[in-house]
Amino acid sequence: MELLKVSSQSKPKLVAGAIAAVLRTGEGVEIQAIGAAAVNQAVKSIAVARGYVIPNEIDLVCYPTFSQLEVDGAEKTSIKFVIENRK
Amino acid sequence: MELLKVSSQSKPKLVAGAIAAVLRTGEGVEIQAIGAAAVNQAVKSIAVARGYVIPNEIDLVCYPTFSQLEVDGAEKTSIKFVIENRK
Repeated sequence: MELLKVSSQSKPKLVAGAIAAVLRTGEGVEIQAIGAAAVNQAVKSIAVARGYVIPNEIDLVCYPTFSQLEVDGAEKTSIKFVIENRK
Repeated sequence: MELLKVSSQSKPKLVAGAIAAVLRTGEGVEIQAIGAAAVNQAVKSIAVARGYVIPNEIDLVCYPTFSQLEVDGAEKTSIKFVIENRK
Protein backbone atom coordinates (compact mmCIF):
# COMPACT_ATOMS: atom_id res chain seq x y z
CA MET A 1 0.00 0.00 0.00
CA GLU A 2 1.32 3.46 -0.89
CA LEU A 3 2.46 5.60 2.07
CA LEU A 4 2.11 9.40 2.14
CA LYS A 5 3.80 11.44 4.86
CA VAL A 6 1.88 14.47 6.11
CA SER A 7 3.39 17.29 8.17
CA SER A 8 1.93 20.33 9.92
CA GLN A 9 2.81 22.31 6.76
CA SER A 10 1.03 19.99 4.31
CA LYS A 11 -1.79 21.51 2.27
CA PRO A 12 -4.98 19.46 2.78
CA LYS A 13 -6.24 19.98 -0.78
CA LEU A 14 -2.97 18.71 -2.27
CA VAL A 15 -2.85 15.68 0.03
CA ALA A 16 -6.54 15.04 -0.71
CA GLY A 17 -5.79 15.04 -4.43
CA ALA A 18 -3.05 12.47 -3.91
CA ILE A 19 -5.33 10.27 -1.76
CA ALA A 20 -8.12 10.49 -4.35
CA ALA A 21 -5.75 9.60 -7.19
CA VAL A 22 -4.68 6.40 -5.45
CA LEU A 23 -8.22 5.39 -4.45
CA ARG A 24 -9.38 5.80 -8.06
CA THR A 25 -6.86 3.14 -9.11
CA GLY A 26 -8.69 0.72 -6.79
CA GLU A 27 -5.86 0.61 -4.25
CA GLY A 28 -5.78 1.78 -0.64
CA VAL A 29 -3.36 4.34 0.74
CA GLU A 30 -1.69 4.99 4.09
CA ILE A 31 -0.95 8.38 5.63
CA GLN A 32 1.61 8.91 8.36
CA ALA A 33 1.58 11.91 10.71
CA ILE A 34 3.68 12.78 13.76
CA GLY A 35 2.28 15.28 16.27
CA ALA A 36 -1.11 16.93 16.76
CA ALA A 37 -0.69 19.56 14.04
CA ALA A 38 0.26 16.96 11.42
CA VAL A 39 -2.56 14.64 12.54
CA ASN A 40 -4.97 17.56 12.14
CA GLN A 41 -3.76 18.22 8.58
CA ALA A 42 -4.09 14.52 7.79
CA VAL A 43 -7.69 14.46 9.06
CA LYS A 44 -8.62 17.55 7.02
CA SER A 45 -7.01 15.94 3.96
CA ILE A 46 -9.07 12.78 4.43
CA ALA A 47 -12.30 14.80 4.85
CA VAL A 48 -11.60 16.69 1.61
CA ALA A 49 -10.60 13.50 -0.24
CA ARG A 50 -13.89 11.84 0.71
CA GLY A 51 -15.71 14.58 -1.20
CA TYR A 52 -13.38 14.21 -4.19
CA VAL A 53 -14.09 10.51 -4.69
CA ILE A 54 -17.86 10.39 -3.99
CA PRO A 55 -18.59 11.10 -7.71
CA ASN A 56 -16.45 8.04 -8.51
CA GLU A 57 -18.75 5.93 -6.32
CA ILE A 58 -15.94 5.42 -3.83
CA ASP A 59 -17.10 5.35 -0.20
CA LEU A 60 -13.87 6.45 1.52
CA VAL A 61 -13.38 5.06 5.01
CA CYS A 62 -10.29 4.96 7.18
CA TYR A 63 -8.97 3.84 10.51
CA PRO A 64 -6.09 5.19 12.56
CA THR A 65 -3.43 3.01 14.17
CA PHE A 66 -0.37 3.78 16.25
CA SER A 67 3.00 3.05 14.71
CA GLN A 68 6.50 3.31 16.15
CA LEU A 69 9.12 5.17 14.12
CA GLU A 70 12.76 5.99 14.60
CA VAL A 71 13.47 9.67 13.85
CA ASP A 72 17.08 10.85 14.24
CA GLY A 73 17.77 7.88 16.52
CA ALA A 74 14.81 8.57 18.83
CA GLU A 75 11.65 6.46 19.10
CA LYS A 76 8.54 8.39 18.11
CA THR A 77 4.92 7.36 18.02
CA SER A 78 3.18 8.30 14.82
CA ILE A 79 -0.40 7.92 13.73
CA LYS A 80 -0.94 5.93 10.57
CA PHE A 81 -4.28 6.22 8.78
CA VAL A 82 -5.27 3.33 6.53
CA ILE A 83 -7.62 4.70 3.85
CA GLU A 84 -9.72 2.46 1.65
CA ASN A 85 -12.92 2.16 -0.33
CA ARG A 86 -15.43 0.67 2.14
CA LYS A 87 -16.85 -2.11 -0.03
CA MET B 1 -26.53 8.42 16.02
CA GLU B 2 -24.98 9.16 19.43
CA LEU B 3 -22.63 12.19 19.52
CA LEU B 4 -19.60 12.37 21.83
CA LYS B 5 -17.72 15.63 22.26
CA VAL B 6 -13.96 15.35 22.63
CA SER B 7 -11.67 18.12 23.89
CA SER B 8 -7.91 18.50 24.16
CA GLN B 9 -8.27 17.29 27.78
CA SER B 10 -10.20 14.12 26.97
CA LYS B 11 -8.57 10.83 27.95
CA PRO B 12 -8.29 8.56 24.88
CA LYS B 13 -8.86 5.34 26.86
CA LEU B 14 -12.08 6.67 28.38
CA VAL B 15 -13.39 7.95 25.05
CA ALA B 16 -12.36 4.64 23.44
CA GLY B 17 -14.38 2.76 26.05
CA ALA B 18 -17.44 4.87 25.24
CA ILE B 19 -17.00 4.34 21.47
CA ALA B 20 -16.59 0.59 21.97
CA ALA B 21 -19.69 0.40 24.18
CA VAL B 22 -21.85 2.01 21.48
CA LEU B 23 -20.41 -0.10 18.63
CA ARG B 24 -21.11 -3.28 20.60
CA THR B 25 -24.83 -2.38 20.62
CA GLY B 26 -24.71 -2.49 16.79
CA GLU B 27 -25.05 1.29 16.42
CA GLY B 28 -22.63 3.85 15.02
CA VAL B 29 -21.29 6.84 16.93
CA GLU B 30 -20.15 10.35 16.05
CA ILE B 31 -17.29 12.27 17.67
CA GLN B 32 -16.96 16.03 17.49
CA ALA B 33 -13.67 17.87 18.00
CA ILE B 34 -12.70 21.54 17.64
CA GLY B 35 -9.04 22.40 17.13
CA ALA B 36 -5.92 20.37 16.42
CA ALA B 37 -5.36 19.18 20.00
CA ALA B 38 -8.93 17.89 20.30
CA VAL B 39 -8.77 16.26 16.86
CA ASN B 40 -5.57 14.50 17.94
CA GLN B 41 -7.25 13.16 21.08
CA ALA B 42 -10.21 11.99 18.99
CA VAL B 43 -7.90 10.14 16.58
CA LYS B 44 -6.04 8.44 19.44
CA SER B 45 -9.39 7.44 20.97
CA ILE B 46 -10.52 5.88 17.69
CA ALA B 47 -7.21 3.97 17.33
CA VAL B 48 -7.60 2.56 20.85
CA ALA B 49 -11.30 1.76 20.33
CA ARG B 50 -10.49 -0.25 17.20
CA GLY B 51 -8.39 -2.57 19.36
CA TYR B 52 -11.13 -2.83 21.99
CA VAL B 53 -13.77 -4.10 19.53
CA ILE B 54 -11.69 -6.46 17.37
CA PRO B 55 -12.43 -9.37 19.78
CA ASN B 56 -16.15 -8.62 19.22
CA GLU B 57 -15.61 -9.13 15.46
CA ILE B 58 -16.28 -5.44 14.85
CA ASP B 59 -14.14 -3.94 12.09
CA LEU B 60 -14.16 -0.28 13.17
CA VAL B 61 -13.89 2.23 10.34
CA CYS B 62 -14.54 5.95 10.32
CA TYR B 63 -14.55 9.01 8.13
CA PRO B 64 -14.05 12.65 9.07
CA THR B 65 -16.29 15.47 7.83
CA PHE B 66 -16.31 19.20 8.42
CA SER B 67 -19.22 20.63 10.38
CA GLN B 68 -20.12 24.21 11.23
CA LEU B 69 -20.92 25.01 14.85
CA GLU B 70 -21.92 28.11 16.73
CA VAL B 71 -19.85 28.55 19.90
CA ASP B 72 -20.58 31.63 22.04
CA GLY B 73 -22.16 33.33 19.03
CA ALA B 74 -19.15 32.70 16.73
CA GLU B 75 -19.05 30.29 13.77
CA LYS B 76 -16.49 27.56 14.25
CA THR B 77 -15.50 24.69 12.02
CA SER B 78 -15.33 21.39 13.82
CA ILE B 79 -14.33 17.95 12.65
CA LYS B 80 -16.94 15.26 13.04
CA PHE B 81 -15.87 11.63 12.85
CA VAL B 82 -18.52 9.10 11.90
CA ILE B 83 -17.54 5.73 13.38
CA GLU B 84 -19.14 2.46 12.31
CA ASN B 85 -18.64 -1.26 11.91
CA ARG B 86 -17.48 -1.77 8.31
CA LYS B 87 -19.54 -5.00 7.89
